[in-house]
Amino acid sequence: MKKVIDAIKQFNKERDWDKFHTPENIAKSIVIEAGELLECFQWGSEYDYKQVCDELADVMNYCIVMADKLGVDMETIVLNKLEETRAKYPVDKCKGVSTKYDKL
Amino acid sequence: MKKVIDAIKQFNKERDWDKFHTPENIAKSIVIEAGELLECFQWGSEYDYKQVCDELADVMNYCIVMADKLGVDMETIVLNKLEETRAKYPVDKCKGVSTKYDKL
Amino acid sequence: MKKVIDAIKQFNKERDWDKFHTPENIAKSIVIEAGELLECFQWGSEYDYKQVCDELADVMNYCIVMADKLGVDMETIVLNKLEETRAKYPVDKCKGVSTKYDKL
Amino acid sequence: MKKVIDAIKQFNKERDWDKFHTPENIAKSIVIEAGELLECFQWGSEYDYKQVCDELADVMNYCIVMADKLGVDMETIVLNKLEETRAKYPVDKCKGVSTKYDKL
Repeated sequence: MKKVIDAIKQFNKERDWDKFHTPENIAKSIVIEAGELLECFQWGSEYDYKQVCDELADVMNYCIVMADKLGVDMETIVLNKLEETRAKYPVDKCKGVSTKYDKL
Repeated sequence: MKKVIDAIKQFNKERDWDKFHTPENIAKSIVIEAGELLECFQWGSEYDYKQVCDELADVMNYCIVMADKLGVDMETIVLNKLEETRAKYPVDKCKGVSTKYDKL
Repeated sequence: MKKVIDAIKQFNKERDWDKFHTPENIAKSIVIEAGELLECFQWGSEYDYKQVCDELADVMNYCIVMADKLGVDMETIVLNKLEETRAKYPVDKCKGVSTKYDKL
Repeated sequence: MKKVIDAIKQFNKERDWDKFHTPENIAKSIVIEAGELLECFQWGSEYDYKQVCDELADVMNYCIVMADKLGVDMETIVLNKLEETRAKYPVDKCKGVSTKYDKL
């Protein structure tokens, strides 16, 4: 992962784009790219594999930039959040159902 | 990264949630979580650090699930896309400006 | 408003697009278009007036289709929801602040 | 429609919320609410009718605020955009298919 983070940072540094990358602008960028990813599925469940990979990569790219701006380690926050979600969704209550935790 | 992917897969397997995780539903989930991340910045640039980390983790979690469903390696697709973006945004044309490639 | 609704319905009928317009697909379309609207503000508060109007129109178009599919009157649901929001945000508690109701 | 616009403006004025409603913040709000609307369909095509109406109303509310901020008439911009879309999607090319205009 470090290799990817470094490549992205180098890419942005060469372009002097750091000044645009406030957490607020990155949050906007993540949702914009997520919308483009969803566009691959706008009218149904079939999709263009290459296009989905490309759009997913764009979302990930900005997520990595955001984590870097926040000074957090991606893997750590994902694992931490998973523990919190575990508490909200006990296996015996949510197994096999997609009900939201506040309605379990 | 492998550790995180395995933790997420185990988490979903325990809950029998795999059946909900079609690429289409995951794409929806990514944009839904991205919207929650943006909500941290709805009225301005100030933000609650813990909340932003949590929402970012949720976006990342679904991105990881998506990559797993597609059978692609996250790092590979991000690096590949970066190369494509490099071609669209040559340093001499885009340095220090946020102009979109089709207007450069 | 009736004139607009009829124009949109006629437009979609001519193209035989009704079959794509399930509530689920329309919900996806609304968020996709909303992402494009946000793209006008991706890197800051300045914006292209014509582009913002165009993207806003796309969001509205799909909102109108959704209301039509649900068989509800747009104005009625907006006014009803405003009453619910009024209860959540009493003037004396929320005046001049952007705090979310669950933290007021 | 005028009645609804006035009700929303009065609602926001009473709360002194106008100062938060920059076009940029409203664009963020539209996509945030659109994400909540999509959440009603996160795991499939079935939905809670009341909840969908409520979330749609929230999206519409911010669209109306945006149009008001831009000083444009909602119906006018939707009809204008429909004419532009008509040119992009000639009936004989797009009838019955969901292909995007750039691939028609």
